[in-house]
Amino acid sequence: MIIEPRTLAGFMELLPNEQILFEQMKQKIENTYQKFGFLPLDTPILELSEVLLAKAGGETEKQIYRFQKGDTDIAMRFDLTVPLAKYVAKNYGNLSFPFRRYQIGKVYRGEKTQKGRFREFYQCDIDIIGDEELGIINDAEIPSIIYSLMLELGFKDFSICINNRKILNGIFEEINQKEKAVEILRIIDKIEKIGKEKVIEELKKIGIQQHEVNKIINFISIEGTTDEKIEKLKNLNISNETFKQGLEELELVVKYIRIFNVPDTHFKVDLTIARGLDYYTGTVYETFLNNYKEIGSICSGGRYENLAEYYTNKKLPGVGISIGLTRLFYKLNELQLIKTEKCSMADILIIPMTQDMSIPIKLANNLRAKNINTEVYLNDKKLKAKFKYADKLKVPYVIVIGEDEINTNTIKLKNMKTGVENTLNLDAEEIKQVIK
Amino acid sequence: MIIEPRTLAGFMELLPNEQILFEQMKQKIENTYQKFGFLPLDTPILELSEVLLAKAGGETEKQIYRFQKGDTDIAMRFDLTVPLAKYVAKNYGNLSFPFRRYQIGKVYRGEKTQKGRFREFYQCDIDIIGDEELGIINDAEIPSIIYSLMLELGFKDFSICINNRKILNGIFEEINQKEKAVEILRIIDKIEKIGKEKVIEELKKIGIQQHEVNKIINFISIEGTTDEKIEKLKNLNISNETFKQGLEELELVVKYIRIFNVPDTHFKVDLTIARGLDYYTGTVYETFLNNYKEIGSICSGGRYENLAEYYTNKKLPGVGISIGLTRLFYKLNELQLIKTEKCSMADILIIPMTQDMSIPIKLANNLRAKNINTEVYLNDKKLKAKFKYADKLKVPYVIVIGEDEINTNTIKLKNMKTGVENTLNLDAEEIKQVIK
Repeated sequence: MIIEPRTLAGFMELLPNEQILFEQMKQKIENTYQKFGFLPLDTPILELSEVLLAKAGGETEKQIYRFQKGDTDIAMRFDLTVPLAKYVAKNYGNLSFPFRRYQIGKVYRGEKTQKGRFREFYQCDIDIIGDEELGIINDAEIPSIIYSLMLELGFKDFSICINNRKILNGIFEEINQKEKAVEILRIIDKIEKIGKEKVIEELKKIGIQQHEVNKIINFISIEGTTDEKIEKLKNLNISNETFKQGLEELELVVKYIRIFNVPDTHFKVDLTIARGLDYYTGTVYETFLNNYKEIGSICSGGRYENLAEYYTNKKLPGVGISIGLTRLFYKLNELQLIKTEKCSMADILIIPMTQDMSIPIKLANNLRAKNINTEVYLNDKKLKAKFKYADKLKVPYVIVIGEDEINTNTIKLKNMKTGVENTLNLDAEEIKQVIK
Repeated sequence: MIIEPRTLAGFMELLPNEQILFEQMKQKIENTYQKFGFLPLDTPILELSEVLLAKAGGETEKQIYRFQKGDTDIAMRFDLTVPLAKYVAKNYGNLSFPFRRYQIGKVYRGEKTQKGRFREFYQCDIDIIGDEELGIINDAEIPSIIYSLMLELGFKDFSICINNRKILNGIFEEINQKEKAVEILRIIDKIEKIGKEKVIEELKKIGIQQHEVNKIINFISIEGTTDEKIEKLKNLNISNETFKQGLEELELVVKYIRIFNVPDTHFKVDLTIARGLDYYTGTVYETFLNNYKEIGSICSGGRYENLAEYYTNKKLPGVGISIGLTRLFYKLNELQLIKTEKCSMADILIIPMTQDMSIPIKLANNLRAKNINTEVYLNDKKLKAKFKYADKLKVPYVIVIGEDEINTNTIKLKNMKTGVENTLNLDAEEIKQVIK
């Protein structure tokens, strides 16, 4: 009996040409993280539910893949932060602080399936974890990593937006609306979509008084350069201590970001950014492609007071970011911002025309020894079928080796994009020089 | 309330120094697969149980992590072969054949937990899938990939053992003991441990007649060089067709393996190798470290007649291998055959001694631009704490930048292994030349 081969809804599975692109993006992210000296980490996808869900609740908990195996209550990780917290608490004595780690791995959330939403997706995280304390300068290194990362991924026109949660919290404390903070943030988050008038209307609807609305609107309407915005924030004359501390931190972070050489064209203060509500406590980040805001934030994160409070009494402050690679890839592909060119990992495909394969195989071994990915077409097919394979693979170069080539100790190297054919000596180094 | 941060039994979680090594091994395997032109594939870890378990049964099925989410019966993949079969059947029209793919990913088996056994482990697979047919020469390319792989992983003294299932099956057909094949193989598999006499005894115990036992013993006792073994197999004068076909294939594979330049010192015919019973149909492979046979086979696989018979009517013959990386890493580590040296991904740690970080940060950016992984120690600590961090990380080089260095536009580059200190110009290229 034949069973229809199908993949679960919400689970991405790519064709080879797409997969190659996906792997390239993943590799670029990993290389960037390593360039800044972050350590690799790989934690299990399954954890004890009791451990993984120590903190979770509400929406998150509903989405968890959780099951019983024998006597064990098991859950699949839904992010890479909780496993990091567990790991740092567990291995505290064996780690050097600040502990800088990256992790790139799949996480699982049983969200409603809809276009562009995935139940299994890659997160690419970095975090810097301090022991008891972590200097604010670390909050400024993060945007410099984002900046490198975005350039590495081929983006030029993007904005790294920063804010500080203490500024937001201070504002809400100032107008005595701390308990409505979530609702207020949700409304002001929509300002780009629905406009200022609608925002005012909705704020009033949830019971915010006119003079409080004014304060909020004045605050989020602050415009200008980064320095002008900071100046205007100072001029709001808000006496709330949380606000003042947040503003001080923001000013320092901006100062350091410039020392980290991130140009003012690529970062800005955005006072509407909050990044969820119960986790971040200081600096927060979002990163947008200026011409494709509909993609949403590509790279987000922030500062948190205490990573692992559910697992240890040690105070472990940290700052980190995450890229949701699966969704990003899907969106870039949908918008045709990435091109699936080759369907081959090989740089060169060697097509033997003789029964005896020893010379083609020897050449392939020599090319591989020079770090050139090489495939030999091994199957006994007609020439037409062999070239059809090369065409479908979109392999960059093809080498044909027949009787003539063996007798003259030469090869024909064909650039499959330009069609240009070169006759070269049967020599790996000579071939390498031409294709590099 | 504090919850004890613990990891599920049977799930590997490494410290940074071990993780670095693990990633290096994984990277070497991936690079080798790519060098031979294999395409990357990444399939979901979760699949519909109906699809994933189309074929499974017995032992495998018992070990599966399987659960209900909403109305959906879900299972975690237990290998990378079934997902490959599903993928090829599903995407048949969009693939080029022979389809050469690699996949490196985690798989799940709820085995009994014991030392060195893992419930979550990496498999690193390659397979070559033909459409309707796949030439025997592909069976010979596989050992050449294993050979490259083993050298790349740093192994020198190893044996790639090959056999052909048709030879085994033919022998059992010849003595009319096909239905006892599993038991017989289990017994002869122990010959190295228990010796020939015990094997004879056990064969008789399961009802094999003396003259049949003789045939088996004659067969597995065949010794000599590869060519001598093949000659002796011919001289057994077994008329069974399956046997003859297997022997013919084995002879061809040996011929081609030599064309692929695998030296006779590193491969051999081993007539006792069977690799399970219901999957492989032709050539089979196992790979051993000659001095550490207790590790078991490092890299195993073989030829199968039809990859995806449960999902499609297309006939898809293939040949492939798999490395169980998690277990291999564990064993090599246990035997101290791999050394966990550095605990840092950074090549250089820059330690700033001044309040102003701009010069250290600028240097770090310049070094990264030259592909040197660089970390700046950003935290405001005493010099002693800074050097303690460098020591713990075992970072290869440390650069200290203080007032003096800034004033003279120089830096001190310290090789942390030799202790040698160089005074260099504050110039990334000059530093690169010294450390490379």
